[in-house]
Amino acid sequence: MPELLLINPNTTQSMTSTMALAARSVVPQDVQIIAVTSEYGPTSIEGYYDEVFAIPPMLDLIRELTSPVDGVIIGCFDDTGVEAARCISEAPVMGICQAACQHASLLSASFSIVTTLARSVHPIERRVLDYGFERQCQSVRASDIPVLALERCDDDAMNALYQQIEGALEQDNSEAIVLGCAGMVDLQESLQQKYQVPVIEGVTAAVSIMQGLARLPSNTSRRNTFASPLEKDYQGVFNRYSPARNNK
Amino acid sequence: MPELLLINPNTTQSMTSTMALAARSVVPQDVQIIAVTSEYGPTSIEGYYDEVFAIPPMLDLIRELTSPVDGVIIGCFDDTGVEAARCISEAPVMGICQAACQHASLLSASFSIVTTLARSVHPIERRVLDYGFERQCQSVRASDIPVLALERCDDDAMNALYQQIEGALEQDNSEAIVLGCAGMVDLQESLQQKYQVPVIEGVTAAVSIMQGLARLPSNTSRRNTFASPLEKDYQGVFNRYSPARNNK
Amino acid sequence: MPELLLINPNTTQSMTSTMALAARSVVPQDVQIIAVTSEYGPTSIEGYYDEVFAIPPMLDLIRELTSPVDGVIIGCFDDTGVEAARCISEAPVMGICQAACQHASLLSASFSIVTTLARSVHPIERRVLDYGFERQCQSVRASDIPVLALERCDDDAMNALYQQIEGALEQDNSEAIVLGCAGMVDLQESLQQKYQVPVIEGVTAAVSIMQGLARLPSNTSRRNTFASPLEKDYQGVFNRYSPARNNK
Amino acid sequence: MPELLLINPNTTQSMTSTMALAARSVVPQDVQIIAVTSEYGPTSIEGYYDEVFAIPPMLDLIRELTSPVDGVIIGCFDDTGVEAARCISEAPVMGICQAACQHASLLSASFSIVTTLARSVHPIERRVLDYGFERQCQSVRASDIPVLALERCDDDAMNALYQQIEGALEQDNSEAIVLGCAGMVDLQESLQQKYQVPVIEGVTAAVSIMQGLARLPSNTSRRNTFASPLEKDYQGVFNRYSPARNNK
Amino acid sequence: MPELLLINPNTTQSMTSTMALAARSVVPQDVQIIAVTSEYGPTSIEGYYDEVFAIPPMLDLIRELTSPVDGVIIGCFDDTGVEAARCISEAPVMGICQAACQHASLLSASFSIVTTLARSVHPIERRVLDYGFERQCQSVRASDIPVLALERCDDDAMNALYQQIEGALEQDNSEAIVLGCAGMVDLQESLQQKYQVPVIEGVTAAVSIMQGLARLPSNTSRRNTFASPLEKDYQGVFNRYSPARNNK
Amino acid sequence: MPELLLINPNTTQSMTSTMALAARSVVPQDVQIIAVTSEYGPTSIEGYYDEVFAIPPMLDLIRELTSPVDGVIIGCFDDTGVEAARCISEAPVMGICQAACQHASLLSASFSIVTTLARSVHPIERRVLDYGFERQCQSVRASDIPVLALERCDDDAMNALYQQIEGALEQDNSEAIVLGCAGMVDLQESLQQKYQVPVIEGVTAAVSIMQGLARLPSNTSRRNTFASPLEKDYQGVFNRYSPARNNK
Repeated sequence: MPELLLINPNTTQSMTSTMALAARSVVPQDVQIIAVTSEYGPTSIEGYYDEVFAIPPMLDLIRELTSPVDGVIIGCFDDTGVEAARCISEAPVMGICQAACQHASLLSASFSIVTTLARSVHPIERRVLDYGFERQCQSVRASDIPVLALERCDDDAMNALYQQIEGALEQDNSEAIVLGCAGMVDLQESLQQKYQVPVIEGVTAAVSIMQGLARLPSNTSRRNTFASPLEKDYQGVFNRYSPARNNK
Repeated sequence: MPELLLINPNTTQSMTSTMALAARSVVPQDVQIIAVTSEYGPTSIEGYYDEVFAIPPMLDLIRELTSPVDGVIIGCFDDTGVEAARCISEAPVMGICQAACQHASLLSASFSIVTTLARSVHPIERRVLDYGFERQCQSVRASDIPVLALERCDDDAMNALYQQIEGALEQDNSEAIVLGCAGMVDLQESLQQKYQVPVIEGVTAAVSIMQGLARLPSNTSRRNTFASPLEKDYQGVFNRYSPARNNK
Repeated sequence: MPELLLINPNTTQSMTSTMALAARSVVPQDVQIIAVTSEYGPTSIEGYYDEVFAIPPMLDLIRELTSPVDGVIIGCFDDTGVEAARCISEAPVMGICQAACQHASLLSASFSIVTTLARSVHPIERRVLDYGFERQCQSVRASDIPVLALERCDDDAMNALYQQIEGALEQDNSEAIVLGCAGMVDLQESLQQKYQVPVIEGVTAAVSIMQGLARLPSNTSRRNTFASPLEKDYQGVFNRYSPARNNK
Repeated sequence: MPELLLINPNTTQSMTSTMALAARSVVPQDVQIIAVTSEYGPTSIEGYYDEVFAIPPMLDLIRELTSPVDGVIIGCFDDTGVEAARCISEAPVMGICQAACQHASLLSASFSIVTTLARSVHPIERRVLDYGFERQCQSVRASDIPVLALERCDDDAMNALYQQIEGALEQDNSEAIVLGCAGMVDLQESLQQKYQVPVIEGVTAAVSIMQGLARLPSNTSRRNTFASPLEKDYQGVFNRYSPARNNK
Repeated sequence: MPELLLINPNTTQSMTSTMALAARSVVPQDVQIIAVTSEYGPTSIEGYYDEVFAIPPMLDLIRELTSPVDGVIIGCFDDTGVEAARCISEAPVMGICQAACQHASLLSASFSIVTTLARSVHPIERRVLDYGFERQCQSVRASDIPVLALERCDDDAMNALYQQIEGALEQDNSEAIVLGCAGMVDLQESLQQKYQVPVIEGVTAAVSIMQGLARLPSNTSRRNTFASPLEKDYQGVFNRYSPARNNK
Repeated sequence: MPELLLINPNTTQSMTSTMALAARSVVPQDVQIIAVTSEYGPTSIEGYYDEVFAIPPMLDLIRELTSPVDGVIIGCFDDTGVEAARCISEAPVMGICQAACQHASLLSASFSIVTTLARSVHPIERRVLDYGFERQCQSVRASDIPVLALERCDDDAMNALYQQIEGALEQDNSEAIVLGCAGMVDLQESLQQKYQVPVIEGVTAAVSIMQGLARLPSNTSRRNTFASPLEKDYQGVFNRYSPARNNK
């Protein structure tokens, strides 16, 4: 009975609820989704600066687990802090960008990512390169809709999205669309219906992959990159994050 | 209740049985694995020539389905014919190389693939490049064990495998090992135990990913690359494979 | 006196004749072109599915040679089955995509490929990547003309071609055009006349390269990738393709 | 009269002093180096987890500037938080990895980076890829010396370094060595003397480049990636980092 | 007191004067810029052919130095002959393309180069690839203004430049502009003012980097690529360039 | 009746004779090889500095042609000056590195280049990258034999070559060997005999490809990169190389 920790690394609880609902609708009955919201930090993650302050509260949610989970999902399309999380989590960790791209690369030969603001394009392109999808991903396109505006989703926002999706299909020859923000989780179905190509959303992709992986016997490698942090004192307000003595 | 078609694209039924057993052990209860064996063609797939003759019988197994399935897995590490299968399958299709590499890239920062014969290295490297794992995959190493010899798995074979795994860890700085042949499905557990790094096997990775994807609303894109084959007459013995009139 | 086997891997004999005529017009007098047509399989190769069924008949044409040839050309721009052919052919084997790209990369600093249908773009892009031309090749553009419609070549077809060539020159800054289908062999001259840039066609490029190579003492490497297939039984209708006992 | 802020993003003041001394020895007389140490966070940065907690205190040092500076240097070879710093700094920001690689790529055709622990290899390789040095950089090699042990620099540590440098020169054919840790700033001279190839150290490279850039009229682009953070409330202990109202 | 040799490798002295003026305005007081003009060869460098004949006179200027300098700058955006210069110069050598790209990659996440003629695009793209900026550099765009016409800089020329800059910003999403010709040195300020993004010019970037590097203890690596030329007789008119006996 | 100009761009006539002999042995009877030697410049080309002074005399040999030829071959493995030659030659131009790599990539899935001195490795690696063979070419290995010593070919030289070839086969898993110097033209046969893998030599590869291309209707593109040089005065001793008025 796999338990997955689904982290919304911003502090907007309504977004967590929407994510959780979508997540629960796509997993087998035996899976439990524990959806949690960062207790401090940014209300939304838009660009490199916000990202910095979203990571410690996200790590807190992993550190404060009182019973082990079988997988951790980071519900922001920048895959915010996924490497640090892998270093301390007992269970495998996945970000929704990696998950969505993995699904996209198995359902199409080329895809585009449509995200929110222009400042998020570079962080996403870097992820795409990290994961090796730079040839399959034809473009990362900004719709200029702020993250929290996605909750309202008025006509202007939708038209901006439509325009980028149509550009991706017509100009970039993409065969699938990846929604580049956790806040777009509700739009997957209608957009797929409208455009008749796979529209892939990261939260549902990630829980789908992780509930499956949870049944397999492999965990994050502790060799080199994701080894447990070395015992060390952190000074000042970060003292409580100091890597513990019993790390291997 | 997802049903997955697990295809062994060679004619060796004992391999199918082993694959099916492993597959069934890692999926939720509601998943049904239909394990099938190619009815004609090569007894094992070792290099580019064998691959050619494994694809039509593999496609037959998809075409002859009397009721729809929710996902198709091609159980050969060359991902034999996966593109053609995507063109005709009603359900998503995944090869075990892509599946194993996806899992490896989420559990480690760098991995190596250990396969059977030297002639299989290039087909696998090509897949690795297709999928974008050429930087994460540090090396594809041949153990010089023929595919069917894996079933016996004597000491010499095991020692050859050990040597390549140790080379991957020590010389190539890999953090995880991917087993590059469906015939190695039984070795996952003991090798992981022995080396204390993630050892990833493709059949189990693929059924894991595909039973999850089966619960999501997206299917293979029909735009461009994987469009249904155009209506056309195939001459002679391949006539029965002629793309049907009602393709869109 | 080099003899080259020019294979049309689809069953359309009129295409073979056109290819042979063009091929013969560009080789030295001492070269003999043996032009052959697949005896079964698809009438044209449009996308990954058709490709599968074009390979066994193409291999048959190599296997059934009663006297040795000095080079084999596969006359489809997907370079259909070229790797398998290299494993069994006594003589070097080249596909027309590799040939055309090699000529283009020696006559220009950047080129575009103009092909038939959108479904053929990805198979060609994969070849371009395999061969390392992904930076020199600025784009692979589809004209949406079906392969066999090239034989008629009406005004609409020509206009579609013109549009893609003009896009390649003006938008992609290409300096040469590669015709991405064996069926375009007849258009080389007029298009080159019209656009005053090199227009490169694969069949003529391939016979040109191969008649030259035939005079050199090197043959396909038998080390690793293109080693002769291992002795093995193929079951059922493919039994006659079983790799023979005397392979090294 | 350029003023540069040289940040040691860990809390070890002795390291700051050493860095400052080296930095001051390589800049023109008119340059003022303001060397500062993080006031809280990790005592050294070894891997992805430590990095997270080094960024907020580093950003504090930029935010708390009472008079403008002309350039900011981040003195950790992971270029910890350089993107976030670029978003809020009035002056250009550079990490020492980017600086050292830029110098190396102008003094040699290929180089290797020798760093401390194996867990730092991947973060550095990612930087190398971000900056485009993945072909010029032949290898990132770990000496297995912890960061703070560099201050003692006993024989064992030196021998471990020598071994990696010799491997880089002999096995990887590198023509220059980059020291992959700010703690190695004192070793530059003796290692260069010993090996008679350029040995490049990041702190001195970065102040060298930045005091020059400070005299030029260009600053960080505010277009897209490094735009000032959008006004937004950060909850809880990070509230004081909330992007201010007057950001453009 | 660093002395830099700033070479204009074409014979147009007015260009040298403009370059020298700009160079002197951006370096510390203790730096001496020795600006020199090729004594023979092309009046401007436009494409691969001109480049050939600009290199020997450029090397002459280095060889004829009567007292050592601390750095050499090659003031043509093709970085004409920079590798040969590195082989014989006692001091480090940098071309203005590498310098400008290094600055651009530290002030932005993506940039475009705007140059003169279409024939210069490929030589610059090759440099961009050599240096590893092929992902950060979104495009190299030709304005179709000949090099020497830049000195007049009439309205038509400026409009052509504006059009390419606007294309780079709007269509290619670049965040900074690199001026791809030494003849554009005077335009940096006004273009940066007009477009409010960093506009980077190579001559000033190069003297900035090189006066800094001159204070550091590292020089060009003599290992492999840039080893001093082997003693050898050059026949005929090039005899005086024969590598001397005392090279190491 | 194709006429090919085979240029030895160094002044060592014995090397030209050997190259011409080999070249004539691999072309059809109707081909005429005009073998010429640079009249001034370096006696051998070893590294970037020598290369500079080999180009003007090589261009002279093209410019001084009194009757047109059908193809030009540059017989140095650095493909010295091939771009400039393409700008002025009436006929297509090919270097022997590009030719050898093209043949190697059609006879094997991976190859290594074995060259003379370590200083030639980087110029060759750059060519390999220019042409797109960086994945197929596993390594460029130096044997430390000077170019002219190849003519003697004593036991020490041969052993050094053997060692690198064996390293390429055993350690780099290469399937073919490319001889990385025109001076090795005589060794092709014996090395291929000894190692039983394709051993590919550039001079013979280049004449083979070029006599074929000469029968095709395409020539170097004059669009952008290889446009005829613009009319321009070259000052001083290079005056006679000034691009003529009647260039198109």
